[in-house]
Amino acid sequence: MEYIETLGLNAKNAAPLLAKTGAGVKNEMLREIADSISANKERIILANNIDIENAKKNGMSEAMLDRLTLTEKRISAMVEGIEKVISLDDPIGEVIGGGELKNGLRIVKKRVPIGVIGIIFESRPNVTVDAMALCFKAGSAVILRGGSDAINSNKALVNIMRDAMKEYKNCVQLVEDTSHETAEKLMKLNKYVDLLIPRGGGRLIHTVIEKATIPVIQTGEGNCHVYVDESADVDMAVNIVNNAKTQRPSVCNAIESILVHENIADEFFKRLSEVWKGKVKIRGDEETAKRVEVEKIADDNDYATEFLDYRLSSKVVKSVDEAIMHINKFGTGHSECIVTKSLENAEKFQREIDAAAVYVNASTRFTDGFEFGLGAEIGISTQKLHARGPMGLNELTSYKYLINGNGQIRG
Amino acid sequence: MEYIETLGLNAKNAAPLLAKTGAGVKNEMLREIADSISANKERIILANNIDIENAKKNGMSEAMLDRLTLTEKRISAMVEGIEKVISLDDPIGEVIGGGELKNGLRIVKKRVPIGVIGIIFESRPNVTVDAMALCFKAGSAVILRGGSDAINSNKALVNIMRDAMKEYKNCVQLVEDTSHETAEKLMKLNKYVDLLIPRGGGRLIHTVIEKATIPVIQTGEGNCHVYVDESADVDMAVNIVNNAKTQRPSVCNAIESILVHENIADEFFKRLSEVWKGKVKIRGDEETAKRVEVEKIADDNDYATEFLDYRLSSKVVKSVDEAIMHINKFGTGHSECIVTKSLENAEKFQREIDAAAVYVNASTRFTDGFEFGLGAEIGISTQKLHARGPMGLNELTSYKYLINGNGQIRG
Repeated sequence: MEYIETLGLNAKNAAPLLAKTGAGVKNEMLREIADSISANKERIILANNIDIENAKKNGMSEAMLDRLTLTEKRISAMVEGIEKVISLDDPIGEVIGGGELKNGLRIVKKRVPIGVIGIIFESRPNVTVDAMALCFKAGSAVILRGGSDAINSNKALVNIMRDAMKEYKNCVQLVEDTSHETAEKLMKLNKYVDLLIPRGGGRLIHTVIEKATIPVIQTGEGNCHVYVDESADVDMAVNIVNNAKTQRPSVCNAIESILVHENIADEFFKRLSEVWKGKVKIRGDEETAKRVEVEKIADDNDYATEFLDYRLSSKVVKSVDEAIMHINKFGTGHSECIVTKSLENAEKFQREIDAAAVYVNASTRFTDGFEFGLGAEIGISTQKLHARGPMGLNELTSYKYLINGNGQIRG
Repeated sequence: MEYIETLGLNAKNAAPLLAKTGAGVKNEMLREIADSISANKERIILANNIDIENAKKNGMSEAMLDRLTLTEKRISAMVEGIEKVISLDDPIGEVIGGGELKNGLRIVKKRVPIGVIGIIFESRPNVTVDAMALCFKAGSAVILRGGSDAINSNKALVNIMRDAMKEYKNCVQLVEDTSHETAEKLMKLNKYVDLLIPRGGGRLIHTVIEKATIPVIQTGEGNCHVYVDESADVDMAVNIVNNAKTQRPSVCNAIESILVHENIADEFFKRLSEVWKGKVKIRGDEETAKRVEVEKIADDNDYATEFLDYRLSSKVVKSVDEAIMHINKFGTGHSECIVTKSLENAEKFQREIDAAAVYVNASTRFTDGFEFGLGAEIGISTQKLHARGPMGLNELTSYKYLINGNGQIRG
């Protein structure tokens, strides 16, 4: 049996035990994992050091090195993440529908685990722990395939978790062979894996969509916009644009583009320039360029780009309809915002924009499982199947129908 | 632009108008379609005659010819199907969650259309009308790709529908080029299509899963079992097995296999033989063959086969655990049944069987959108993502979050 098939089979065989384990035992197990990670900080950091040295030799950028680096503080944050998951209600077993049919059949629609979830992710080793804790609480075994850059850190983390998990240890599998061939085989492991979640940049996501035969949930691509309507409060608009762009530019719910109504453009760009003082580079259309310094004149490629940096694209528009058309063309279906005083335009924008989260007068940065009160988040879905927007524990479950009768047959 | 891309773009461009159309207008439009189909019965039957003549020339089997044939009565049934859909509540706009956050943000989680749905199906032309009516009511444009056998019937039906639909006519697109190449391109049309639903046999479904890059919902493969527990009421068991196998053997919720506890096997097979009198052929293990006439000794291939005929596989088992293991190995996750008087075994079976619908003491034939009270059905999902079991209008929708604030930014 091939390497990846063995991992798949192990996870598949481990899933039924976990599926019938109640919240109490799952929480105890998560507690054990958290304690074990706390007790093994040194070992984790030593393993991480190897990854960092290798990465330095390979010329990894400072920003990427920072994402890869584990410190005592970051490991404590992982442990806190597990504790947060422990505190959440167990979604499994919740009755979400049902009733009695005329023929006396009693139907209960009940939340059940998905089974085996594959997570394919890039450098950040904290995903190893976060994803495992969420999937475990949601009753599913997990196969983790992190990047080769973080393989030593991931091995250390997974070994520590598995040792703490006793009879549940096969509920977490790490793909230690980080070749592309093995990753591609994982994407086609329908026999053992029920769901695949890629976490990372657009390239990773599109590779998974292209290659996978397992159902995929697309997460985290965010070409998000703020549209500043004619009737906007300019202070509020500048404040929201500034927050949505600069509070944390590297995340998917940060904005990448602004659309400004022509009748408010002069005042808006004047005030925005006063706030940004060149801190954020703008790629704008000719009308933007008349009002503010631009890095270059924007083309469609710029409008389609997720910069994840102190840079955005800009366009002056003639109407809310033009803004909506532009967003539905270039957006990734993540988070979109209108700043307006017009009830009509607010409602039109929320109705016609095709995205997971559509804001009126608030920063797109709120699209987040914690902010939305889901308690946790495995990612933000930008597709319309299964789950859309922030995915918490409920979104990591399936359901089944239990039907009880006393001999009913169909006539 | 390629042929299939043009269809995709047409559907995608038509979807926003439909998405914002209320139930009243959608129902009027469905009424127009129903009336127009009624008024054009002759034209439909003439077109269908061409398909039937071609099929006869190509040596199509009687059973398949029957599925292909449209009669006045069958066309009336299509019209009644549309009327049923008209009578259903509109799922779009339903508020399915939400609340107010501490920071004052107001969140509304609202049901919205999926967008564009592709349906790939085989000979039966009634799917053309059924699928279109359901998708339309659920607010989504639909691209229909039926089999080449039914192309003349499908063209007539779609042309009649489109003529009745005026400005909504692009909400239904028929793929008139029924080549495999075009079908494969449709499966990768992520830019325009949000969801693909294959309706047909296992081969079609697996081709779609293999080739598609668009999210797929797997429907309709049903290798369903009845397990007759040691404590079963034998009359009830025979009655349920007989109904689940013979009431309509060609459908996905009919059973294909029986598992019988060894302590009840003598009596059960004796009574079953009295009822069936050889009407149903049995492929059984050695223990079955000791008790009833078998067509052949069953192998794993038989246990994995969906016969869709007066034939099933059989195995004598030593325990409910063995039955559960067998079903979770060979089942397709559709509908499974235990006949028992034991509460413990009933609960164990419902907890541990991994299927969309798990029955205690009732025929698997009830797994159906109408029977479950969903009012309609586009198919029965055998996967765990998005929807499991019968899919009605709600299961043909997505949702989005609408968030209203008064200038909130993230700290």
